[in-house]
Amino acid sequence: MFTVIGERINTTLKKVKAATADRDAAYIRDDVQKQEASGATYIDVNAGARIGHEEEDMTWLLSVVKEATRLPLCLDSPDPAILEMAYGMVDQPPMINSISLEKDRFDPMIQFLKGKECRIIALCMDDNGMPKGVDDIFSRATTLVSELEAIGFKRDDIFIDPLIQPVSVAAENGTIAMEAVEKIMTELKGVHTTGGLSNISYGLPQRKVVNRIFLAMMMARGFDSAIMDPLDKEIMAVLKTATTLQGHDNFCMNYLKAVRAGDITA
Amino acid sequence: MFTVIGERINTTLKKVKAATADRDAAYIRDDVQKQEASGATYIDVNAGARIGHEEEDMTWLLSVVKEATRLPLCLDSPDPAILEMAYGMVDQPPMINSISLEKDRFDPMIQFLKGKECRIIALCMDDNGMPKGVDDIFSRATTLVSELEAIGFKRDDIFIDPLIQPVSVAAENGTIAMEAVEKIMTELKGVHTTGGLSNISYGLPQRKVVNRIFLAMMMARGFDSAIMDPLDKEIMAVLKTATTLQGHDNFCMNYLKAVRAGDITA
Repeated sequence: MFTVIGERINTTLKKVKAATADRDAAYIRDDVQKQEASGATYIDVNAGARIGHEEEDMTWLLSVVKEATRLPLCLDSPDPAILEMAYGMVDQPPMINSISLEKDRFDPMIQFLKGKECRIIALCMDDNGMPKGVDDIFSRATTLVSELEAIGFKRDDIFIDPLIQPVSVAAENGTIAMEAVEKIMTELKGVHTTGGLSNISYGLPQRKVVNRIFLAMMMARGFDSAIMDPLDKEIMAVLKTATTLQGHDNFCMNYLKAVRAGDITA
Repeated sequence: MFTVIGERINTTLKKVKAATADRDAAYIRDDVQKQEASGATYIDVNAGARIGHEEEDMTWLLSVVKEATRLPLCLDSPDPAILEMAYGMVDQPPMINSISLEKDRFDPMIQFLKGKECRIIALCMDDNGMPKGVDDIFSRATTLVSELEAIGFKRDDIFIDPLIQPVSVAAENGTIAMEAVEKIMTELKGVHTTGGLSNISYGLPQRKVVNRIFLAMMMARGFDSAIMDPLDKEIMAVLKTATTLQGHDNFCMNYLKAVRAGDITA
């Protein structure tokens, strides 16, 4: 089944930043509960925006979020020290967002991950920057998987992010992402693929339309997770409909339920 | 590029049936011009619904349609005698809808097609009925392609219809169609795939939502034609957006044009 990593508890978002600064627990709790009700699988928590306050903000946010939901959390920070603290606070195995192949980040993150019980988002980023084409993405994915397997992670715990790039920048960026996902899902069997879908539409008008059509196309090629906004009703309707069309919905029961609930409308 | 076979001039549709019976040329002309303006590649013409009148209705419809549009036509009849007459009326190479492997239909249709300059929709139907699974579809497609090649057709002239079946009838019907399309497009390189998308949603509420998400997913697997309604603005928006995401739209010029024209809206 598709793994929805709810992206809304992120202090780069103005309202979340303000609620965090004000220690407005009700606002955070309400948002998290809406994400859960809308179909999130994990709740991402990122406290990075208030420079110099990440540790205290993450501590406070986690204390609120973990009481607000039964969902597992996705701990989102580039800093292994913050992640170590956050990992100690959660009650069920989290997802970690993220590791990459950039030298400065890779070794400390591997040290942090060793022996931990968690899942991990692995970005196809290295010191040469963004990947250039399908083969580049796939070779980085292969390295990430073998490094994570070497410290004991199972493939089911690994979520490869191919790093979607805007179709406005290069016409082939959509097909590169789709082909990379198919190759990863086929040749690294057992891993997952995820990512921030909305990069695809950067620079275009009607971005949400592009994002949701792209989700359907990516799912058709094997994409089985996304870092996304579960409160975006239209993209969640696409997700539910595409899941039915993928054969994961006997007698279309979930589709029919979603229509009856008003979640899928023309 | 995607081939849109506009399905609206079909006497099984009540208004078209009435306009045909009344010889209301203005109604037909207007509909055809709207299909052309909305992005149709071919205009399908089917005069089969008024029993005993197919020949005169087809003759009249073609005389109106061919004057109304510069587009090539798709001649839609199970009767080779009607198709022979219709073929004689058109000014540019038409598409023929359709041939199948059903014994009664196959031989007369092959006789008709021999030496003709046209494209052809080839249905994966035989005397055992609808195909059962990907291998069955693929083996019928392979037979159709080799029979049509044997009488001189190029692969670019062949549009295989895998016969999409409702996901409400069996959960795997969506994936069967997607996998069959991918296999046909990969292993019978050069042919096209087409079909009536709306079968997928038979028996479900909000059918148009299902149809358009399915179009995006099918396109991601190689589907490059459909028999569809070009006046359905939402499904045409999906088609345009998916075409951009497939890398067939340099600098997203067509996408931007469609947004400016109001064809792509949230």
